[in-house]
Amino acid sequence: MKRTILKEIANKLKESKTALLYPHVVLDGDTLGSSIALCVALRKLGKTAHILIEDEIPSYLRFLDLNNDYCTYDQHIIDEPDLSIAIDCSDIKRLPLRREKFLSGKSSINLDHHKTNQLFADINYIDEDASATSEIIFNLVKLMDVKLDSEIAEGIYTAIITDTGNFQYTNTTKTTHLIAAELFDIGIDMEKISIEIYQKVRIEQIKISGEIFGNMEMLFNGKANIAFVNQEMLKKTGALMEETEGVISTLRNIIGVEISAFLKEKHNNEIKVGLRSKTYGDVSVIAQKFGGGGHQKAAGCTLNTTIEEAKKLITAEIIAHLEEAEKRVKKTEKQHKI
Amino acid sequence: MKRTILKEIANKLKESKTALLYPHVVLDGDTLGSSIALCVALRKLGKTAHILIEDEIPSYLRFLDLNNDYCTYDQHIIDEPDLSIAIDCSDIKRLPLRREKFLSGKSSINLDHHKTNQLFADINYIDEDASATSEIIFNLVKLMDVKLDSEIAEGIYTAIITDTGNFQYTNTTKTTHLIAAELFDIGIDMEKISIEIYQKVRIEQIKISGEIFGNMEMLFNGKANIAFVNQEMLKKTGALMEETEGVISTLRNIIGVEISAFLKEKHNNEIKVGLRSKTYGDVSVIAQKFGGGGHQKAAGCTLNTTIEEAKKLITAEIIAHLEEAEKRVKKTEKQHKI
Repeated sequence: MKRTILKEIANKLKESKTALLYPHVVLDGDTLGSSIALCVALRKLGKTAHILIEDEIPSYLRFLDLNNDYCTYDQHIIDEPDLSIAIDCSDIKRLPLRREKFLSGKSSINLDHHKTNQLFADINYIDEDASATSEIIFNLVKLMDVKLDSEIAEGIYTAIITDTGNFQYTNTTKTTHLIAAELFDIGIDMEKISIEIYQKVRIEQIKISGEIFGNMEMLFNGKANIAFVNQEMLKKTGALMEETEGVISTLRNIIGVEISAFLKEKHNNEIKVGLRSKTYGDVSVIAQKFGGGGHQKAAGCTLNTTIEEAKKLITAEIIAHLEEAEKRVKKTEKQHKI
Repeated sequence: MKRTILKEIANKLKESKTALLYPHVVLDGDTLGSSIALCVALRKLGKTAHILIEDEIPSYLRFLDLNNDYCTYDQHIIDEPDLSIAIDCSDIKRLPLRREKFLSGKSSINLDHHKTNQLFADINYIDEDASATSEIIFNLVKLMDVKLDSEIAEGIYTAIITDTGNFQYTNTTKTTHLIAAELFDIGIDMEKISIEIYQKVRIEQIKISGEIFGNMEMLFNGKANIAFVNQEMLKKTGALMEETEGVISTLRNIIGVEISAFLKEKHNNEIKVGLRSKTYGDVSVIAQKFGGGGHQKAAGCTLNTTIEEAKKLITAEIIAHLEEAEKRVKKTEKQHKI
């Protein structure tokens, strides 16, 4: 069934002449790597295809489009494209400055792996079992009868490793590894990718981590923790906000911690909250209470308030969630006794 | 050819009645995971098999032998075993307290993937292309006609992820991913393994990292760096030496750094040095100058001196190595011009 729909999408792509690809705002490895892979594949079929972005490409992903061959901010690059294709984008709200443009395509497609996807396009293909949207792109490109080359393979590989924490998160499957094996066969410069993504840490990043962990608070008998970064801390250390990306994983990796929250002060009264759980917690529930979304173990939301206030609000929800979870566990234990 | 030798080894194992397995001292994921996998396989064939160790199992690997079913310190557990099997052990010196016992086996086998292996056994099977010794064990167990179960699969998987930095280091190959896919099929509790190995960080570990990076020195225009941990720092933070395991990777991950050194003061006048390179540096050369060994990108040695003196000696060798490498590059560039 899934495969039939994907084949239909492949045919639609083959029939089109022009396509604009829409990665979600706040570019990450999956949304950008998947977009690059699909854009290269479309061009190999002779289509006019571009990736329309609205924010800066983070430095660790610059290598994917080093010569600005694919990504553009120019909304007039194609005026009325045959296809608008959203990639790894759970909600049309994640195309804030590109929403109208997206809707102006003659037809729209939505390729994603988030279970919270809002199905906002004409054709929506959501595969929750895919570790990354790039697993979908991998199959789609094959169904388009495009021979995968190194550039496509590196886009797909980058997407997989960033979304699975290098095959470490539990979204990793047998299929993920089989795809990786095929990508190795096609030829990827794994050393380059690894250096670009993981081995270009600035000393400022090490300094900001020190600041953040110095202020970390443990909650609920060590079952949760919360930390933050504000503009002042960035100024003091010379670090960039994007350099705090790994903090949330480290918070969650602390022994005994089930839920972690990391608050970023983007601007005054704009606090971006990242949430993670280790096993039984469902942080998508917490994020949804503040209008956000995500997966069970990784979710996020934005609060228009101060860091202090946001900390209080998030802390309260985390504790309520953990109390609820513990009650459930006790109830189950009691039932087992009976 | 390789396969023929491995088949011969499989037959030898099947013909034996008793075997003692020897992981190298300073247990890590590959040596222990591989040993567990082979020990389980031997017992499935009805053999008497044990893993003889001489140092403590690090806490992140305790889950592999939670009930002490396989590992033992008792050298008399089998008095004259048919087979002594060294696993992931490049040199018999890495069995310091077990050397005599190893040599007392009626026959000895050496299974390893280090190119520096000293070929100290009756049968030596060294596969430099294997990302971990456990890739060899994976094939060996199959040739023994043992059906892989979850316990064997988890041993092999643990070994692979610890030796490849979760499929990130360049020793990772297509084969590594194909093996991982098969292990997923057999059934591994990836969430458990991931939590045990990566998500049991103590707060003390975060504190010791702060101390270590606070004292880090950059060398040779930022192309190298060196850091250390001494007993005083451990005492101050309450951290354990094994909790500094990840430091060397972080040192190497800093932008522009080609070679990193991390010095651990094990005791007074016993400094264990870890070395890493990013692309062209060959740290095994540096390690060998101090009687150590390893791979091009990961090597180590031990110096019987103070931290201060060891820092000076290692710094000098790193700078000499980088100067040499730069001369080589310039020479090549000149030749290209001609």
